[in-house]
Amino acid sequence: MGIMRLGHVDINVLNIEESRTYYEEIMGLTVTREDKDGTLYLKCWDEWDKYSLVLRPSEEATFNKIAYKVKNDSDLDDLKIKVENYGIETKFLEAGVVTDCGRVLSFTLPSGHSFQLYAQKEFIGKDTGDTNPAPWPFKGKGIKAHWIDHALLMCQGPEAVMEVTKFFIDIFDFTLTEQVTVGPDGCLQAATWLTCSSTPHDIAFVAGEEVGMHHFAFFLDGWNDILRAADVMAMHNVKIDVTPQRHGITRGETIYFFDPSGHRLETFAGLGYLAQPDMPVITWTEDELWRGIFYHTGIENGAFTTAYTLHAYK
Amino acid sequence: MGIMRLGHVDINVLNIEESRTYYEEIMGLTVTREDKDGTLYLKCWDEWDKYSLVLRPSEEATFNKIAYKVKNDSDLDDLKIKVENYGIETKFLEAGVVTDCGRVLSFTLPSGHSFQLYAQKEFIGKDTGDTNPAPWPFKGKGIKAHWIDHALLMCQGPEAVMEVTKFFIDIFDFTLTEQVTVGPDGCLQAATWLTCSSTPHDIAFVAGEEVGMHHFAFFLDGWNDILRAADVMAMHNVKIDVTPQRHGITRGETIYFFDPSGHRLETFAGLGYLAQPDMPVITWTEDELWRGIFYHTGIENGAFTTAYTLHAYK
Amino acid sequence: MGIMRLGHVDINVLNIEESRTYYEEIMGLTVTREDKDGTLYLKCWDEWDKYSLVLRPSEEATFNKIAYKVKNDSDLDDLKIKVENYGIETKFLEAGVVTDCGRVLSFTLPSGHSFQLYAQKEFIGKDTGDTNPAPWPFKGKGIKAHWIDHALLMCQGPEAVMEVTKFFIDIFDFTLTEQVTVGPDGCLQAATWLTCSSTPHDIAFVAGEEVGMHHFAFFLDGWNDILRAADVMAMHNVKIDVTPQRHGITRGETIYFFDPSGHRLETFAGLGYLAQPDMPVITWTEDELWRGIFYHTGIENGAFTTAYTLHAYK
Amino acid sequence: MGIMRLGHVDINVLNIEESRTYYEEIMGLTVTREDKDGTLYLKCWDEWDKYSLVLRPSEEATFNKIAYKVKNDSDLDDLKIKVENYGIETKFLEAGVVTDCGRVLSFTLPSGHSFQLYAQKEFIGKDTGDTNPAPWPFKGKGIKAHWIDHALLMCQGPEAVMEVTKFFIDIFDFTLTEQVTVGPDGCLQAATWLTCSSTPHDIAFVAGEEVGMHHFAFFLDGWNDILRAADVMAMHNVKIDVTPQRHGITRGETIYFFDPSGHRLETFAGLGYLAQPDMPVITWTEDELWRGIFYHTGIENGAFTTAYTLHAYK
Repeated sequence: MGIMRLGHVDINVLNIEESRTYYEEIMGLTVTREDKDGTLYLKCWDEWDKYSLVLRPSEEATFNKIAYKVKNDSDLDDLKIKVENYGIETKFLEAGVVTDCGRVLSFTLPSGHSFQLYAQKEFIGKDTGDTNPAPWPFKGKGIKAHWIDHALLMCQGPEAVMEVTKFFIDIFDFTLTEQVTVGPDGCLQAATWLTCSSTPHDIAFVAGEEVGMHHFAFFLDGWNDILRAADVMAMHNVKIDVTPQRHGITRGETIYFFDPSGHRLETFAGLGYLAQPDMPVITWTEDELWRGIFYHTGIENGAFTTAYTLHAYK
Repeated sequence: MGIMRLGHVDINVLNIEESRTYYEEIMGLTVTREDKDGTLYLKCWDEWDKYSLVLRPSEEATFNKIAYKVKNDSDLDDLKIKVENYGIETKFLEAGVVTDCGRVLSFTLPSGHSFQLYAQKEFIGKDTGDTNPAPWPFKGKGIKAHWIDHALLMCQGPEAVMEVTKFFIDIFDFTLTEQVTVGPDGCLQAATWLTCSSTPHDIAFVAGEEVGMHHFAFFLDGWNDILRAADVMAMHNVKIDVTPQRHGITRGETIYFFDPSGHRLETFAGLGYLAQPDMPVITWTEDELWRGIFYHTGIENGAFTTAYTLHAYK
Repeated sequence: MGIMRLGHVDINVLNIEESRTYYEEIMGLTVTREDKDGTLYLKCWDEWDKYSLVLRPSEEATFNKIAYKVKNDSDLDDLKIKVENYGIETKFLEAGVVTDCGRVLSFTLPSGHSFQLYAQKEFIGKDTGDTNPAPWPFKGKGIKAHWIDHALLMCQGPEAVMEVTKFFIDIFDFTLTEQVTVGPDGCLQAATWLTCSSTPHDIAFVAGEEVGMHHFAFFLDGWNDILRAADVMAMHNVKIDVTPQRHGITRGETIYFFDPSGHRLETFAGLGYLAQPDMPVITWTEDELWRGIFYHTGIENGAFTTAYTLHAYK
Repeated sequence: MGIMRLGHVDINVLNIEESRTYYEEIMGLTVTREDKDGTLYLKCWDEWDKYSLVLRPSEEATFNKIAYKVKNDSDLDDLKIKVENYGIETKFLEAGVVTDCGRVLSFTLPSGHSFQLYAQKEFIGKDTGDTNPAPWPFKGKGIKAHWIDHALLMCQGPEAVMEVTKFFIDIFDFTLTEQVTVGPDGCLQAATWLTCSSTPHDIAFVAGEEVGMHHFAFFLDGWNDILRAADVMAMHNVKIDVTPQRHGITRGETIYFFDPSGHRLETFAGLGYLAQPDMPVITWTEDELWRGIFYHTGIENGAFTTAYTLHAYK
């Protein structure tokens, strides 16, 4: 049935030990594997696969790639054909090339982002187990992020947003839930939100100057966890870009903040709504764009449009 | 792509005017159609199709049927074949036979419940619209239920639960998220929770004496809406069966209560977790069954096992 | 200015080590002193005086006494005169007789409860300090109770409630905030809530069969802390008597549960309202008594009227 | 025993009808009296006296005076002596001169603010009544503010803050709960928070350029009401200065925003802590000043130091 969810985000960080402490003590993830080159693999307590975040020691804080998990191994063959028919070259990486994963279909999105699909990753299980589980882990740390929920990728201009959006709809069968339209008669999509689940977004795209990653997001239950998370961030001098807010778009409750390397992160809370293929697409017009992003003030805030993570190209 | 979600619940009520007031003023639904025979069709503010609840004036408070919506009209043809191959007779009702719906595939579940599938229902839209929408309707009434989220159907014994569960997995491609196992070595499923979305359940089954409906549930955002809902119920002398609780199963936050005819309803809040086809099935063992249902006390409470709605057979 | 607040509760417990673990790991208090006879003194993180709870190893789980703190040492002299003029014998205990306290005025309330007043207790300070403090302690344990908020003392019949209520109003200048009235024309007070602060109650009295303590309560911020507390209790198999509820009386959000010795405790959350001397007294009539106690159902629940702690008399 | 609470705030507004709509429909107050000159008197649902806010039609949006209520009429005589002994002239206004109030003791604070004390105001009662009351009014409007909680008055420089703070402690028996200290060795108080109840503040003072009012605050229960309030503000295009935040000072949860005339308002939620005369004063040092004000970022935000209401002098 194709893509199920975001599997992992792979980024470069400046100080691997500082990052380890940050993601473990403040965000509440656990390091589940450590490579000789210092690369760390981490998972959230509510995830069952071995990792959802890869941190590579580097001299630049850049984005390497993002990987999504498909339901069946045979989906990879089906999707390879569809992607190549679209005109994009792909290659299969053998099992084990991507750490602790089965074979991986690797290619570049029309937006220029390195993208991977896989059907199998080593299994660890939730911290709460699968027999008579507690609703949350009593010994969890810091913010106790549930899972990595989505990423917002930055594309070069609205045309790139529109092309990659169409690609996700046509090739991956994602559903467009919301869009920001700009230009004459709102003919351009400046940003789009797409889902392959019933949550408001599993990936999103926004027009900017460069190819990169605006942020990726950790899921929290609700507004009270947002307050607690912001308190924990303040106690640890985390740089917060945008304090607790309501998004108009997705209805989510949010904080934007930075990791020690300057990668923008989000804590996103709330189901928002039940996303469905037949739900009318929600449109935010150019004049209400900032109401969509920061519902309470309706105005630009923080470094939202200027700070993001560049794509690492080789 | 098959089934998307619960489309509507169709029940008989004792006093149609009392029911109208109850569902409109307390639950916050809107009557969108009224038939000459007194039948009322209602929708929640966050739903876009014309109705999700059908109330028929009657001398008995019984369950008529439950309907799920599929993505494409052609899914109905595919599912007809699969259901018939399973050995269940089906029939197509022409467009309009089920009020304001396209053609409907109608049959009886292995558990004995009348079940319908449809791909098209008249469209109305969310109360908040689809252009620059507010996150919730300022003029909403009472509890402001978002949508009808799921139903728990009662089956005659664990074998019936097991058969209908297998049916939903094999024929409808639902995912089993949680189960209560009983009997020697936990060989029997006394209750199951199944999803076709990424929420913890779109339908559930429990073993009992009769064929019927244990409850259907309205979605609320979170724990604070649960308190507000319980307050509103108390202000209106709604009979509450189980006060605000945490479910172990689904992690949901809940209230069980009754409508004026005695149908058990639930307000269910929280995403719970991100349900996925590859998430390990969560098992509740017989000794922790009540911890699963009422997490805080772990003991039976209210009329949970004795009060339910019988199926209306003709 | 007289009495400021509840200073400490002094009770006997069956298993001192089990109690230590319970109050430290689950309730989040800290043992600040331990006597050779095994007596433990504990404080909550948001309290500044050395202890608010005294646990004495014993073969019976009984109530010894309750102590309130007055503002000035000279208040003790003033209150001694007022209490004796009322017709109650008092005695002064020298500094140090009550552990780590200054001199203590000791007497028996008209209701038969041992009662003490003091102006000075050894100072420790809040866990968060008093310079640029965090809003809560990151390393706090379990439920992280803020402070001991109030106690509900059980009296022998409504007449005893009425007498001790009048005593607190006339002698201690407490304000009656709420009352349950019963009997012909509601001529009897079956329960009263009294405050010396601007919270809804600093002490309360209820009519029963015996002289004892119904419960004492730990303060939590709000409804979400109540859910978290109930989850923590469930994770530790704490016996919960009454799951998360709204009180009609005080509007508080609450859980009733038991410590390992069977003392009933409460987590009480919310300011409720701003209590003031000129706020009209809120009256709950006999027919709405249970609505006052458990607002959502309006019916008796748990062992609320049958389980309590007897007074230890020598 | 002297001052109980903030009784009313008296301000001038630019457009009386716009203000009426704003305070009634958005803030949820009720107009309880309207004078021929257009002056409006309003109360919150959880207040029992006739009004807590006076809005006078004017060509300037200025502050007239603030009034506090004392417990007994005789307190006014006692306080008159204390204030005059301090060296401040006072005068008694006869009953009725201040609308619907008994006699009023009127004088100017050392900080230059017009200040009034009264013991009696016409009684209306809470919207929920005083017999078997609901915890909140089902038909309440908008934000449903509970009561006017406190005001922050702006003084000319730290010396003025220090003088008026000492005045409130010595003459009115208020307790200093928190302070911001600046200057060499923190010798100056740049801001102070004082209470006459057990909430963190009933009045506060901050050093600025002019004599005026920084804001006055409406009480809400907690963080979820803050989100709901911000949503309601956004739905009505209220100008929000500071979106939902945690205060380090008082621990309160807050929004700062403006009324149609530009008066800064606050919704303040949470008890914060139990303020007591013997609680150690909390000090925020100059380097952590903004952490105290906006705990999450610790940096200046909005127009917090530049926008305020000037005192109207005649």
